[in-house]
Amino acid sequence: MTTGTWAEPTVGATSTALARLSLNTATTKYWTLREAVDGAVGAGLPAIAPWRDRVHEVGVAEAARMIADAGLRVSSLCRGGFLTAEDDADAKAALDDNRRAIVEAATLGTRELIMVVGGLPAATAPGGPARREPGGRDLVGARQRVADRIGELAPFAAGHGVRLVLEPLHPIFAADRAVISTLGQALDIAEPFPADVVGVVVDTYHVWWDPDLQRQIARAGTAGRIASYQVCDWILPLAADALLSRGHVGDGYVDFPTITRWVAETGYTGDVEVEIFNESVWDAPGDQTIATLAERYLEHVQPFL
Amino acid sequence: MTTGTWAEPTVGATSTALARLSLNTATTKYWTLREAVDGAVGAGLPAIAPWRDRVHEVGVAEAARMIADAGLRVSSLCRGGFLTAEDDADAKAALDDNRRAIVEAATLGTRELIMVVGGLPAATAPGGPARREPGGRDLVGARQRVADRIGELAPFAAGHGVRLVLEPLHPIFAADRAVISTLGQALDIAEPFPADVVGVVVDTYHVWWDPDLQRQIARAGTAGRIASYQVCDWILPLAADALLSRGHVGDGYVDFPTITRWVAETGYTGDVEVEIFNESVWDAPGDQTIATLAERYLEHVQPFL
Repeated sequence: MTTGTWAEPTVGATSTALARLSLNTATTKYWTLREAVDGAVGAGLPAIAPWRDRVHEVGVAEAARMIADAGLRVSSLCRGGFLTAEDDADAKAALDDNRRAIVEAATLGTRELIMVVGGLPAATAPGGPARREPGGRDLVGARQRVADRIGELAPFAAGHGVRLVLEPLHPIFAADRAVISTLGQALDIAEPFPADVVGVVVDTYHVWWDPDLQRQIARAGTAGRIASYQVCDWILPLAADALLSRGHVGDGYVDFPTITRWVAETGYTGDVEVEIFNESVWDAPGDQTIATLAERYLEHVQPFL
Repeated sequence: MTTGTWAEPTVGATSTALARLSLNTATTKYWTLREAVDGAVGAGLPAIAPWRDRVHEVGVAEAARMIADAGLRVSSLCRGGFLTAEDDADAKAALDDNRRAIVEAATLGTRELIMVVGGLPAATAPGGPARREPGGRDLVGARQRVADRIGELAPFAAGHGVRLVLEPLHPIFAADRAVISTLGQALDIAEPFPADVVGVVVDTYHVWWDPDLQRQIARAGTAGRIASYQVCDWILPLAADALLSRGHVGDGYVDFPTITRWVAETGYTGDVEVEIFNESVWDAPGDQTIATLAERYLEHVQPFL
C-alpha cells in the first residue's frame, strides 16, 4: 500500500518473489547435492534441478529423500539424451541409459527429464575436431534418428509419468552436442506425441537469437509443452571452452524482459531455472552465486513473469 | 568417352571444373589486391570477390581496371551493412557509407554487394562484452531498423544496378555482428523488394545447422534471390577469436554434398566463393591456400553443383 516510496523487502516478501526460482545444480558445480539443497533452502528458493552425477553420488532414493525432507520441489532432472549414434550397440546403450534416467526422474518426483540429444557422429568429442574420414556429417539423418528414438522412449516415459523434454541448444553446439537447434524444430519432433509425454525447454542462452522465437514460444505454450524456462545470459568474448560462456542474467546481451513476457503470455506457471556454466561463477562461493542469481532474477525476470 | 577408367585431368579440364570458383580476398588476407588477382589467374580461377579495404588501397577505378585486365569476373563486393545504430548520426554515417559501397560495386562491375547488417547497440565492439547499462538489447527493434534501412538504400542500389545481398550470420554473431541469423529471416526482409534489388547469400559456415535450410534455399532460389554461394567449414574447437574458426572445406562438420545439391536444385548457376577467416590459413603462402581450396572444391562441392 506504499505509494511513491519503496518498502524495504522483508524475508516473507522476498520468498514470495522467489516462489518460482529453481537452482540448477550445474550453477554451483562444485557443491555436492547436500550443499546445493542446503544452499537453496538457505536462500529461500523453493526448487532445485539436480544433475544426475550429483544424484548418483548419494544414490537416487537418498537424493529423493534429501530433497523432499528439505521441502524443495524438483523442477527437472538433467539430463538424458545423446540419441544420435549410428551404431546399433551405441544406440542401445543410449536408450538403456535414458530408461534409467526416466526411472530416476520418477523416483525424484519430477515429471521433467531434460534431453540434450547429441551431436553428429563425425564429432570426436564434445568441442573436439571432426573425424578425418568422410561420413558422420549427415545432419538430416542424425535429426531423424533423434525423432525415431524419442518415439522408442515415449511409451516407457509415459508409463513412468515422466516427460521427455527436448532442449534446443544454440547452433554453436549443433556439430558436437545437440542436433536440435531451434525451438520450432523441437516442437516439430514433439508434435506426434502427447504434450505430457514430450515437451520442450526454453533456455534463453540457447534460443535468444531466434527470429522466430516469439511465435515458437506461443506455439509451445498453446500446445502445453513448455516444461521448463531456464535463464542465463549470452556473454562475450566467448570463453576458451565455448560451453562455459554463460553469464549471470544481466551480464550479457539477452533481452530478458521481452523473452520472459513471451513465456508468461502463454500462461506458463512453472519454475524458472538458473543454469550457468562458467568457470568464474563456479569458482565463487556457492552462497554468493545463489545470492547473485536471486538478485538478478528479481531485477530482470520476475517482474515480467 | 572413357568408360571404366579415368583420364588424367588436363589443364583445360581443370579450368572447366573451376569455372564457377571465386577467390574471396579475405581467404588470402595478407595479399594485396594485385597479388590476389595474380594468384587467382595463376590457379585458373575465373572470378574474385574483393573486400573493400583491398580495393581502397589501390583506388576503385584502378581496382576495376586491374581485375578486368586480368580477365576475372567480380563475383561480389564485400561488404556493406552495419545498419543497426540507434543514434541518428551513426545511422546517417552508415547509410552514407553504404551508398559509397554501392557505387564501388557498380564501378567494379559486380551487381552483388554483400551486407553484414550489424549487431546489437549493447555491443562495445565486435566480440566484446555487452555495455553495463541497460538498453541496446532490443533484438526485435534492431532487426526492424535493418529492414527499414534496407528500404532506404534500395532505390539508390537499384539506380546503380546493384543488389543489396543480405548475409545471415551464424547465431554466434547475433549479438555483436549481424542480427540477421537465418536464411528465412533474410528472405522475409528481402520479400518486399524486387529480387534484383535485394538478395541473399548462402554461406555454409553460417547456415549449415539450420533445420529449415533446405526449404529456405528452395524459397530463395524460387524467388531468384540467391546472389552468392559461399563455402567454408565449421571446425572445432573454436578459435580464441570465434570469428576465425572457419576451416577449409572438408576439415570440419559441414555436409557439403547435401547443401550444394540443395543450392544446385534451385537452378543457381552463379559463382561459388571460398571465404575463410582462419589464422593458420592466412599464415600459409597464398598460392598454397588457393591450391588447397581448389582441390577441396573439386572434391566436396563441384561434383554436386
